[in-house]
Order: sequence, then C-alpha cells, then structure tokens
Amino acid sequence: MIQSSPQQTIQNVVEQFVREELSHENAHIAGAVWSMLDAGGKRLRPRITMLACLACNAAASEDPVLASYMELIHVATLIHDDVLDNADLRRGRESTNRAFGNRFSVLAGDYLFSWVFKKITQGYAPPIPTILAAMLSDICNGEVKQLRAAGDVELSATRYYEIIGKKTAELFAACAEVGAINGLIQAGRAPGPALRNAPEVRMLREYGRLFGLAFQIRDDIYDVVASEAELGKPSGSDVREKKMTLPMINALKLGDHAFRRAVEKLFELEDLDSAEAKPLLAEAMQGMRSGPAIDATNAAMAEHADAAERALDDLHPTPARDELAALARTLKQFS
Amino acid sequence: MIQSSPQQTIQNVVEQFVREELSHENAHIAGAVWSMLDAGGKRLRPRITMLACLACNAAASEDPVLASYMELIHVATLIHDDVLDNADLRRGRESTNRAFGNRFSVLAGDYLFSWVFKKITQGYAPPIPTILAAMLSDICNGEVKQLRAAGDVELSATRYYEIIGKKTAELFAACAEVGAINGLIQAGRAPGPALRNAPEVRMLREYGRLFGLAFQIRDDIYDVVASEAELGKPSGSDVREKKMTLPMINALKLGDHAFRRAVEKLFELEDLDSAEAKPLLAEAMQGMRSGPAIDATNAAMAEHADAAERALDDLHPTPARDELAALARTLKQFS
Repeated sequence: MIQSSPQQTIQNVVEQFVREELSHENAHIAGAVWSMLDAGGKRLRPRITMLACLACNAAASEDPVLASYMELIHVATLIHDDVLDNADLRRGRESTNRAFGNRFSVLAGDYLFSWVFKKITQGYAPPIPTILAAMLSDICNGEVKQLRAAGDVELSATRYYEIIGKKTAELFAACAEVGAINGLIQAGRAPGPALRNAPEVRMLREYGRLFGLAFQIRDDIYDVVASEAELGKPSGSDVREKKMTLPMINALKLGDHAFRRAVEKLFELEDLDSAEAKPLLAEAMQGMRSGPAIDATNAAMAEHADAAERALDDLHPTPARDELAALARTLKQFS
Repeated sequence: MIQSSPQQTIQNVVEQFVREELSHENAHIAGAVWSMLDAGGKRLRPRITMLACLACNAAASEDPVLASYMELIHVATLIHDDVLDNADLRRGRESTNRAFGNRFSVLAGDYLFSWVFKKITQGYAPPIPTILAAMLSDICNGEVKQLRAAGDVELSATRYYEIIGKKTAELFAACAEVGAINGLIQAGRAPGPALRNAPEVRMLREYGRLFGLAFQIRDDIYDVVASEAELGKPSGSDVREKKMTLPMINALKLGDHAFRRAVEKLFELEDLDSAEAKPLLAEAMQGMRSGPAIDATNAAMAEHADAAERALDDLHPTPARDELAALARTLKQFS
C-alpha cells in the first residue's frame, strides 16, 4: 500500500513511535534511537523482511511496520553494544555511548526491545513473536561467545562461523523468515508454528542466514582494509578489541611463526592503545592485509554470498526474488 | 500439581533453565542468574502470581512456571540495574556487577529477558505476553524518570509515586494480573484482551499495584533506618545516589531552611563519598530519620498496604485471598 522507499517508511514508523509512545518526558530515549538511525546504514534488514514477504506473496501489502520493527531491534542491539565495560574505562577508552551514559543506554535498549515486543505480540500471529524472542536469545548467546573468545589465537574458523551465525546471521535469517511467514498469512495460510516448515519459508530463512554470514565477513574485512574516512571510525578496531575475525584467523593460518608470535604478544598486552602495542598492531594489520590472507577471506565472503543467491533457486520467480538475489551480489562489489 | 514451596519450585525452574538452555558454554550467564537468586529475597513476585491465580480459580493448578518467569524478569532487571555508569566509575565507585563486567551484565540480562519472552509467547495465551511486554516498557520508563529526577530537591510526592508506580509497582501489578488471568483461562474462560476487564482481574491488579507502592516506600525507609548488617549494604545508599525518595521528600517538606540548604549543598557535590560530603550526608540522614519525617513516611507506607488489603474486599473469599491480605499486612510489621 505504502509505496515510498523502505528508508522513508522506517523513518515514518519511528516518528510515530516517538510521537505516540515516548511523549515529551522520554525525549531522551527517542534521542538515542534517532542518533542511531541517523548514523545511516542501508536498512538491509527491513528490505529483506519486505522482499521476503513479497517473494512469498506477490499480492501482499508491503508491511513497513514489521520491517521497521526489525530495524528497531537492530538499533536496540547497537545501543546495548555500546555499553562500556569496566575494563574499557579503566584503559581510558570511550565509545559512542558517552553522550548518554551506560545506565541510560541499557534502559534505552531495554525500552526499545520491550516496546517492539509489545507491538509484535499485539499485532502479529504465531509463530512470529516466538521467532523474534528466540532470535534475541541467539544473538545474546553469540555475543557472549564472542566476548569469551577474545584474544584466543587458537579459535577455529568453525567456531568463528558459529559465533557470527548467532551474533549477526540470526537476525537476517529471522527477517527473511518472519517476512515470508507474514506473506503466507496474508495469502490466507493459517498462522501457527507449522508455517516455519513451509518450503519457501525455509529457503528464505536459509538465504537470510547465508546473507548474514557474508555480511559479517565483509564487515570484518572492511575493518582491516578500509580507510578511517570510509569506516567513520579508526580501522583495526576489531584487533584492538582482540576480536578473532576471519581475516585474523586466515592471517594466522597462512602467516609464519613470527607473525603468530607478534599477535600473541599483542593480545597479552592490557592496553592496545599504548606505545608498546603500536608496532605489534601494525604488524597484525599488515598480516591480515597480506595477499594470501585477504584473498582467502574475500573468497569465503563471496562463497557465502553465492550460496545465499543459490538458496533462492527453487523459489517461484518474482521481482522480489530477483531483488534479493541482486542484494546478495552487491555484497561482492567491493572486492 | 507441584506442591512444594514457591522458593523450591523457582529453584527447580531455574535449574531446568540452566540445564536445557544455557548448556556448558553459557555457564557464565547461568552464574549471573544464580548469584542474583542466591542473594535471597522473599520471592514475593512469584508468590503473588500464584496466589492471584488461586484467588480466581481455587481449582487451578498452581503454576510455578509462570510465577518463576516473573521472578526471572525481576532478576534480569536487577542484573541491568547493576550496570555501572561512566560517571560512577569516574568517581571510583563499583557495584555488584564488578564480578562480571558491564558488557556481560547487559548480555546476561538481555538473554534472560528474551528467554522468558520466548517461553511466554510459546506457552501462554493472549493477553499474557502483551501484558508482560508493556510492563517492561513501563519499568524502563520509570527508571529513566528516576535517573532524570536525581538530585532534584523540588520533586513532588506526586512525581515520586509516578516514578515508583512504573519502576516497582508495575511488576507487582503484572504478577497479580497475569496470575489472575491464568486462573480464569484454566477455569475455561476464552483467552484474549477482554480478560483484562474481568472484575477479579482488575481488583487483583490494583492489589498488586498498591502492594508494590507500599513495598517500595518500605524499601526506601529501610535504606534510611536499617543498619548496614540488616541491609547487606551501607545504609544511605539512596541519598548517595541523589535518589529522591519519600523519606527525603518528607524531610524536606517538614524540615527547616538549614536542612534544605544542607541537602542542596550535598547534591551540588560531584563525589558524595568525599570527606567534604560526610557532614552533609550525616545531616541528610539525620533529617530523614527525624520524628515527623519518618512518621509521615511510615504512615504513607501503611496507607498503601491498607489500601492493597481493601482492594481485595469484593473478591470471592478464598484462602488465597486471605494470604494475599496477610502479605500486605506483613509490610507494616517492621514499623
């Protein structure tokens, strides 16, 4: 029904959210949400939600509301991601939440999560609310695993995929899945858990999962190869947080013993912003950017993007399906 | 069916939670939950949930699962409450989350919220999931309001009641409400939003709300009058956080100009643990403990406890109703 662009409709729903729910006394939570939305982004999650709906039911009304809720869940996770750890503060670092403070960020994220859940339990049939609640558990699980794996130079690629599968891919998978289910319900199918087994729902969920994996690998590559201007933040922030990303795993696998020792020494340091860390950091970045390591990581990303596209092969051909395929292809454009 | 005490059954459900959901790799989240449950507490929220169910349907099976979820929501809010603010750390203070770190606490709380929501959307009919999601929004709202009101010596009692109504009473109200609705559904009433308007549901919700208000006033009094040993933490922690509680509002209303100036000077300080703050803190505590101020606050607490009991007057007489009434009376026992 609403024919404006996804970006436009998301802004509209958020405006309505601010107007109806937050009123003047919670302008502060609204402000935190706005600042995260203003930071830009391609709104991939709501686009995938809407396209999955149309891929299952070309006659469906594009549902910008459900799609926007998926973006707001993403925003809430971003707000919580920005909560500083005690350790970070002790090392003197600050992140984007400094404008609001930790406690406020926690509350703003909680408010947003609970608001979205309220709206979804009020407005959407089973199994949509359950899929979203389960997805949030998975995201938290992935984040905890990532936190525990920090600085572990022995982390395998398999474990890396497990972590990003939960932390990142699960949200994309859920977007595609609830979008698809919403399309089928609009087409007259009875709501209920059985909808999760519909072939088109399974295919689209798998597309979302593979898309999410490729998306996260791409993000991890960017952190290594992009300039500060392109990133909007200093490059190499993953390695400074001792995050074990695929570029690092490949660099360790393909690099020599001296490289491994340098990374180990770097990860033994408390303060990765110190003068002592500088040459080791440079060596780590150099190793991840080296030909064989970056080639292997780019190849892994492309493989997952291709697999996402192939997951759509048996879906009834529609313009929405073609757009989803094109979206997966665009992930490969920077390489 | 399960006839063990509420404490017992809550422990059982949490154990099951740990076993089935967290597995060995998330022992850390489980640990955070355990440490909060171990800290004790009278498990008032699950008791009210179960008693409200029985007050609406004496033949209902006591549902320890729903009751336990209410306690776990409370635990999740406690975990998030303990996230340190940047400002706190800069002033050198630490709280209970130091064992885990801020980021971990945020994730553990998020995981717990989402896990409970997953279980509730899977296992409970409307409007139960919606009531709980709306309640969480309200709690966050109340917490934000409290954060904004810190150090505001002009805060009225009306605004105080608004804040604690959302921050604390809403959870007790929701416990009574979902318990009551669960009882009616077990008695064969059709699930749906209309159940919120059933007279017994409204009465029990109002009981929970008034109970919650009395409970929070009592908690605020304790922070002023109890010893460190009774509290398990230093007394006066509210005033050190510049929290505007009813004892402070009454002390300001009933005290003289010199007292007000002392509180204003105290709240102008950055570091309330400094030597400079010490005499002012002592004066503030003295004022809140003074006869007229503490009497007025005790009276307000007793009024709300009495009103909670009266809210049950028109309810069909049952042992569960009598237990709820007795629970409200015990709030007055310390004064």
